[in-house]
Amino acid sequence: MSGGGAAGGAGAGAPRRRGAALEAAIFDATLDLLTSGGFARLTMEGVAGAAQTGKAALYRRWSSKADLVVGALGATLPSVTDIPDLGSVRAEMLQLMAGFGELMNSRAGTAIRVLMAELDQEQAEAFRDFLLRQVIQPANAAMLRILGRGERRGDVRRGAAVPIVADVAPAMLLYHAKVCEGPLDMAFCLDLVDEVLVPMVRA
Amino acid sequence: MSGGGAAGGAGAGAPRRRGAALEAAIFDATLDLLTSGGFARLTMEGVAGAAQTGKAALYRRWSSKADLVVGALGATLPSVTDIPDLGSVRAEMLQLMAGFGELMNSRAGTAIRVLMAELDQEQAEAFRDFLLRQVIQPANAAMLRILGRGERRGDVRRGAAVPIVADVAPAMLLYHAKVCEGPLDMAFCLDLVDEVLVPMVRA
Repeated sequence: MSGGGAAGGAGAGAPRRRGAALEAAIFDATLDLLTSGGFARLTMEGVAGAAQTGKAALYRRWSSKADLVVGALGATLPSVTDIPDLGSVRAEMLQLMAGFGELMNSRAGTAIRVLMAELDQEQAEAFRDFLLRQVIQPANAAMLRILGRGERRGDVRRGAAVPIVADVAPAMLLYHAKVCEGPLDMAFCLDLVDEVLVPMVRA
Repeated sequence: MSGGGAAGGAGAGAPRRRGAALEAAIFDATLDLLTSGGFARLTMEGVAGAAQTGKAALYRRWSSKADLVVGALGATLPSVTDIPDLGSVRAEMLQLMAGFGELMNSRAGTAIRVLMAELDQEQAEAFRDFLLRQVIQPANAAMLRILGRGERRGDVRRGAAVPIVADVAPAMLLYHAKVCEGPLDMAFCLDLVDEVLVPMVRA
């Protein structure tokens, strides 16, 4: 809070940054270290060093490394956006899946896959809440709106706009990540839409 | 291999068992301890004590506790059985899901849920192979046969008997276990069949 010490503890020659610029550098370093070395080996010291700042600057903002990681993911993860009316349920589902693919292949998405693979259940609880709030619930809501619009348009059967139907896309992505070997690419998304999702809901 | 020492190391007063009876007692103790205390706290000593035998009797059969746990699960998990022709794809899917529910709620199924929740990715590798071989692949094969028969019968659309469609049921069960809160009961299985699986494949 005093004069020029927002990045207090930084080594000699470190750039002086504060506020958003410092935070961006810290998040950047966090995702880098998380993706390359995993959560267990991530330390507040390591992040401070990579971001050329001091540990005190980190602890002023985040009380633990789990806190810091949730902050870094929350600030950088592409959000699941609502899909506009594209005239057909297939086009809208494809756009939703493409957004998912983008999200999963983003830096934050890669870090999330590292976390999900590495953490045991207890450690994963904090991230589970984050994922529910930031990814799964918005994705389900977007899918439900696609289904509801399709019902009104007439290319989705009546009664398909229910939560268990909206769960199928995220369930298949989770299953793909956990059980299958192949990449989460556009070919998989196309298959999922054309072999599973559209047949499941068409009028 | 000598005279009467198959359960060598057992304490005074311990019952003398060998072969299948001893193995059954060991598996029983393993599943009990796993379900009540988790994998991290499971020890060969603990199992030997609970089964009233000696550590040596365990190490003669299994080289590690992971090995022992896979043995106990493999010996006791109900198998996924092929579903006979029941006249409709809905009836056959319901029977397959009921079998899944039974499996997941069996003692070995409960132990598997404990393991899946507790273990990190690295530890879970051995069990992942076991689950693939013992549960997921047989379940997918059974579902593919249901779909193929339905195509020939005429209550399943042509082209639905493909792996990605057969993946939906196990994917929804995994998602339910990982993300949802409710029990895996018959109500969920009915919803899954009637809202998702049958609409996805009907002719």
